[in-house]
Amino acid sequence: MRIEELDTPVPVVDLDIVEHNLKKMQAYCDSHGLNLRPHIKTHKIPAFAHRQVELGAKGITCQKLGEAEVMIDAGLDDVLISYPLVGATKADRLAALSRRAKLRVGVDSGLAAQTVAAAARASNAQIGVLVEFDSGNKRTGVVSVDEALNLAIQIEKSPGLRFDGLMTYPSSEATAEFVAEAQHRFSKAGIKIGVVSGGGTPNAWQAHKIAGLTEVRVGTYIYQDRATVAAGAADFDECALHLHATVISCPTADRAVIDAGSKSLSSDRVDPAAGSGYGLIRGYEDAVIERLNEEHGVVDVSRCSRKPQVGERVRILPNHVCVVSNLHDEIALSRGGILLDTKRVEARGKTR
Amino acid sequence: MRIEELDTPVPVVDLDIVEHNLKKMQAYCDSHGLNLRPHIKTHKIPAFAHRQVELGAKGITCQKLGEAEVMIDAGLDDVLISYPLVGATKADRLAALSRRAKLRVGVDSGLAAQTVAAAARASNAQIGVLVEFDSGNKRTGVVSVDEALNLAIQIEKSPGLRFDGLMTYPSSEATAEFVAEAQHRFSKAGIKIGVVSGGGTPNAWQAHKIAGLTEVRVGTYIYQDRATVAAGAADFDECALHLHATVISCPTADRAVIDAGSKSLSSDRVDPAAGSGYGLIRGYEDAVIERLNEEHGVVDVSRCSRKPQVGERVRILPNHVCVVSNLHDEIALSRGGILLDTKRVEARGKTR
Repeated sequence: MRIEELDTPVPVVDLDIVEHNLKKMQAYCDSHGLNLRPHIKTHKIPAFAHRQVELGAKGITCQKLGEAEVMIDAGLDDVLISYPLVGATKADRLAALSRRAKLRVGVDSGLAAQTVAAAARASNAQIGVLVEFDSGNKRTGVVSVDEALNLAIQIEKSPGLRFDGLMTYPSSEATAEFVAEAQHRFSKAGIKIGVVSGGGTPNAWQAHKIAGLTEVRVGTYIYQDRATVAAGAADFDECALHLHATVISCPTADRAVIDAGSKSLSSDRVDPAAGSGYGLIRGYEDAVIERLNEEHGVVDVSRCSRKPQVGERVRILPNHVCVVSNLHDEIALSRGGILLDTKRVEARGKTR
Repeated sequence: MRIEELDTPVPVVDLDIVEHNLKKMQAYCDSHGLNLRPHIKTHKIPAFAHRQVELGAKGITCQKLGEAEVMIDAGLDDVLISYPLVGATKADRLAALSRRAKLRVGVDSGLAAQTVAAAARASNAQIGVLVEFDSGNKRTGVVSVDEALNLAIQIEKSPGLRFDGLMTYPSSEATAEFVAEAQHRFSKAGIKIGVVSGGGTPNAWQAHKIAGLTEVRVGTYIYQDRATVAAGAADFDECALHLHATVISCPTADRAVIDAGSKSLSSDRVDPAAGSGYGLIRGYEDAVIERLNEEHGVVDVSRCSRKPQVGERVRILPNHVCVVSNLHDEIALSRGGILLDTKRVEARGKTR
């Protein structure tokens, strides 16, 4: 079958571009002495995770236990769960995994640390812990070195837990300031900060400028997307995943409707400076996907000199590729325009 | 297991409320002589579709062929596909289904009509066709009675196709005007408009005021959500699906973070008049889910007199329940606060 014959909408991934992106990030990290620990939340496919490790990644990162379960089932054996786990059910699942792989977990509260401790107790395994701090993103993460130190002391005292260092997302200039103060204070308290883990594809190529950083967690770099191109982290040629869609209706001269809506592209926007609409139609750069319903994308083609026709297939660069990947059971794999195979997105929908 | 012990995030559906909502809409349609043809895109579960038919629905509506395949596999036998199908692959799949169930398809272009005709030819079955027109939504649908009539004439001439009538979404006051003119013009051309199918839960209770309407396609009414409550189509007590989530972090007094982000709640917004944020936390109505990342919901709790704590479970009414249902492999079923079972969302992710 040719790519053009695939039923739409369908995400199509170019493996040459994937390979280029994986090698480029690995080479960058190697050249700066940074450990790369890719986040699998973007691709959610064990085969890609294995390739990342083969190329030099020091283990992988998962956001959810369900993702870690899929990856460990597939033979990945060094996993950071960069997400606070809270409660008895999470502790049970973490305990089961800690018997099968080398685990590290990010925590930002006493209760999250207790959850990891309960897992370590139940499994008789040692689990590494990173204390998450906030570099200005105002999401999770302790907001002071005092809190980080208190949490590190609690972790050091907990049987089965090993304090491995600090974690933040995304890493930025503020990261270095926090880390410098933490190194001073932790050192006085006799606690070693082994790892300082940062992340985020948009500013990944500046990671080497952040003093103290030892590890880079990036996910989007494997596929790239409209947002990372807008951030200057990638070129359009480095975008590996496009959603192939079909124009299903052109009710007026200025309006085309595609068979991809929020259930295929997600409702995620990009910064207005990065462009308008819910994705970029390659070859119709003046078209604007101005509205998504669940199964319809309404496209303003008034500014297009050449306009797409009913039945025509289009290739869309998603605004945010991680959420697109999560909406599809399968992706199609291609190389240089040739369709090779389809691949199940095995950790798709692992929300827990 | 108790509901409180379910791992989070998890959508929990109250079956008493589902039953109430299904019966209420059926009674409304019955009392006004309207045929109810529920849209399964909201629940995506054959058991609920069967219940809708048992209660009096005249068949079901699907948006995508993949949804129709799941429903027909499960024994549903009268399906409207309210979506333009374009191309050879769609024709093949439609042909296969037309051998197994009574089908009707909405079209708004010559190419879409040709696709249905190709399916009818391949299967030797007769397929009903509705011509979709635009009632002001500016999505799909022909924009003039002239176009509708020309398309109906093309359909009447196509072997295997049966022109059944007109379709629009959402139905509104503009629907009646279009239908009145169409009835006049079609009648002069000797073409009978058997069905006039309208839809949309937000204005469903006004359907009887639209002269000429014969059929109501509604989906959201089974669960209801924040948007349909805001539209006045439902009360909060009629919302059947809540996403149960856990507070995983409270980095500052004014910020709580929940374990549900855009991969659990979607990035869909509601009209600002309907409220702010990405869902309503029941019992914390002054909290605002102000930002979603993929796995994090960042909640502004500054206006809450009582504030949620790390480890606490919360119930979230989604802005737009159809996309939430589509993000989860399973829902939990409950009745009066008692957990009964879990149910696979069988037509989830059927984007094609």
